Amino acid sequence: MRFHGTMRINGVGHLEIGGCDTVKLAGKYGTPLWIMDEEYIREKCRRFRKAFMEGGRRGDVAYASKAFLTLAMAAIINEEGLSLDVVSQGELYIALKAGFPPERIYFHGNNKSLDELKMAVKVGVGRIVVDNFYEIDLLEKAAGDRKVNIMLRVTPGVEALTHDYIKTGQEDSKFGFSIADGDALTAVNKVHGMKNIVLKGIHCHIGSQIFETRPFVEAADILLGFIRNIKHDFEIDMEELNLGGGFGIYYSPGDEPRDIASYADHIFHLVEDRAREYDLKMPKIIVEPGRIIAGPAGTTLYTVGSIKNIPGIRKYVSVDGGMTDNIRPALYQARYEAIIANRAGEEAVEPVTIAGKCCESGDLLIKDICLPEIESGDILGVSCTGAYGYSMASNYNKLPRPAVVLVREGTAELIVKRETPEDLIANEILPKRLAKDVDLPYASMS
Amino acid sequence: MRFHGTMRINGVGHLEIGGCDTVKLAGKYGTPLWIMDEEYIREKCRRFRKAFMEGGRRGDVAYASKAFLTLAMAAIINEEGLSLDVVSQGELYIALKAGFPPERIYFHGNNKSLDELKMAVKVGVGRIVVDNFYEIDLLEKAAGDRKVNIMLRVTPGVEALTHDYIKTGQEDSKFGFSIADGDALTAVNKVHGMKNIVLKGIHCHIGSQIFETRPFVEAADILLGFIRNIKHDFEIDMEELNLGGGFGIYYSPGDEPRDIASYADHIFHLVEDRAREYDLKMPKIIVEPGRIIAGPAGTTLYTVGSIKNIPGIRKYVSVDGGMTDNIRPALYQARYEAIIANRAGEEAVEPVTIAGKCCESGDLLIKDICLPEIESGDILGVSCTGAYGYSMASNYNKLPRPAVVLVREGTAELIVKRETPEDLIANEILPKRLAKDVDLPYASMS
Repeated sequence: MRFHGTMRINGVGHLEIGGCDTVKLAGKYGTPLWIMDEEYIREKCRRFRKAFMEGGRRGDVAYASKAFLTLAMAAIINEEGLSLDVVSQGELYIALKAGFPPERIYFHGNNKSLDELKMAVKVGVGRIVVDNFYEIDLLEKAAGDRKVNIMLRVTPGVEALTHDYIKTGQEDSKFGFSIADGDALTAVNKVHGMKNIVLKGIHCHIGSQIFETRPFVEAADILLGFIRNIKHDFEIDMEELNLGGGFGIYYSPGDEPRDIASYADHIFHLVEDRAREYDLKMPKIIVEPGRIIAGPAGTTLYTVGSIKNIPGIRKYVSVDGGMTDNIRPALYQARYEAIIANRAGEEAVEPVTIAGKCCESGDLLIKDICLPEIESGDILGVSCTGAYGYSMASNYNKLPRPAVVLVREGTAELIVKRETPEDLIANEILPKRLAKDVDLPYASMS
Repeated sequence: MRFHGTMRINGVGHLEIGGCDTVKLAGKYGTPLWIMDEEYIREKCRRFRKAFMEGGRRGDVAYASKAFLTLAMAAIINEEGLSLDVVSQGELYIALKAGFPPERIYFHGNNKSLDELKMAVKVGVGRIVVDNFYEIDLLEKAAGDRKVNIMLRVTPGVEALTHDYIKTGQEDSKFGFSIADGDALTAVNKVHGMKNIVLKGIHCHIGSQIFETRPFVEAADILLGFIRNIKHDFEIDMEELNLGGGFGIYYSPGDEPRDIASYADHIFHLVEDRAREYDLKMPKIIVEPGRIIAGPAGTTLYTVGSIKNIPGIRKYVSVDGGMTDNIRPALYQARYEAIIANRAGEEAVEPVTIAGKCCESGDLLIKDICLPEIESGDILGVSCTGAYGYSMASNYNKLPRPAVVLVREGTAELIVKRETPEDLIANEILPKRLAKDVDLPYASMS
């Protein structure tokens, strides 16, 4: 398994993250357990700042909350001076609860409700990224007498080489105004005449888990052409160009992420060139990394339970979590790496398949991974689970969602408590007519 | 859209379920909203009882909780005299809280923990369906001085024609003891010698969403052969034969479910024939339907928001829920039908694609469905969402999980309250060092 951030093997041969022995963490907090490496998160934020916001570059970096959002995460992102990309009232609520300045928040979504827009206006969200004509009408209503700064999300028609589900820049998308069919320019025209809506810039998002710089540069190129058309038709310069997120990360062999600086260099050079060529004001460049900040920062710890060997076919190793805490293998056929945390230095000798505990054949976390000989009771660490694990977790099979622990410099802090059986029914109501007067031997069970 | 259960169009042209106007329900409880049709559930339970437990047939029907479990659902299943199949401590907890008699509970799972087994023993669960050798050891420990009734889960090697993820009877499975490689017989031998474990029968599960009777009959045939071998080697009759679940339901055109009686007839006839042929005691036959009881009983109501028409390509209609309340289209490429609940009698005239509100291109609920001309503000009803919708729901994008309403004879009862933004952070802890002393304009926001 490739090591990320502060991962290392400590003196007793255990996997250590943020100076904490993961085997001890498993003992203290139980498993499954998400470990988030604070230093990794902060270091990645700083690299993005350096690449996009320093050395004379006028840019902004908005962390994409949907990858992983907790109060603590929002607070860290705030401390690091990044902005925040939210996609719902829920995400906005959490950001604000963590003290995140609303003026540094971008609000996205293909179907924001009037309530969401009202809330965004009320708290003074920095930019509303408007996705469609219906939203323009809703926003005009929600804004009332307030002036609201917006960006328009457009589809540049770029297809990134990635999984179908997370490819969003193409024409056939639920998101954004199409440049090609003229809708994007029509939208500019529509908001241009509105008193309470101020168009600050153009946004696009071309997909997820992208390893090349080319799609970003192509998208920027198309957007600059569009910005030139806007200037031609309306005599206004777009102040901001938002290229979204999608920066690929390493999950398993074959994934080869670019250096962040390399993305930034390519993008800035292209935009500078085109701005000069088209006689445009150089726009502020915004990116929205999510996975690349949260993903490799996260490791999931599991306890190994049953092991089933089918000679000549496969050896199934079952852990105490599964598709409930990580739906990505089943949903996107995502590949992960793993390590036996309590014997982290041992050589991999046998291929096994890591299965989850859900009652479903598809609940497999890693198919055919080579590990040291594994035993029931071992602690298995699966790396790069920081993004879209916790955020997409469910209570399928009524499994309580695991705890999240933030580690740094030898200290571990619980930032999300493990759910209890009681939590699973916290919002339930049993109608009186269905309630039984029971006296069964589980009164003190929970 | 095909109608199920008590669905009908009422006098004002609205979709009605359980005698309740769904448009009014949407107004009262908000959307997204799950509606569960109590009469449908009860009627299906009765059909199963009739087919498997009446007319001289010695059988049992255990509702598979993982499809949909709430306190109210467990109580209804109990009132209908069915047994219950649970797969975790969480499901067991909920069943018991609802007053479900533990002796009518079957406890499944490929990786039960020692704690789960201890709890199952303590409360006196009827049958523990033991999946692997590791579990036998754990259970012997957990049982202590108590006698525990078990079934052994085996893999018969039958492959049902269904989605890869939910195909579980084949050899290459994380579940059960293989008959073919001798593990199953070895397991019988192992538990046969244990004082605190009583082997009552054999269990298999061949998959999900199966439309044919053939795989069930084939599995039964193989299991009878295995039971004959057990009798030959150990001189014991297996009292129970559990064929699991997997009965297919109608989601969309092309799905052609069998009559329940037809499954039962085929299975009973085969088992009776073989029992006679092999000189075996006729075993009690157990089935574990989940989806077929809960699925068509459920309808999800959404409010239509933005509509994006891409001429010549696709018309996207976005609703206020999505993959958070129904992961099945993205996870299994599942197809659904829908209706405009507030204009339920209108003719379908245009193909549209129903998109969710999550920030993800793959968040599409129904691709290319023909509907009446649709408008923002319409209430969309998606049918057959009662199974694996609520049970697999997540808070992705920090969308609160919808409410669940139980309807019958014109009365609606809220059985699960809608989550609030506060619920989303109920288990969070913001470390003091990260907390900001903030005074922002959202103090009274929630």
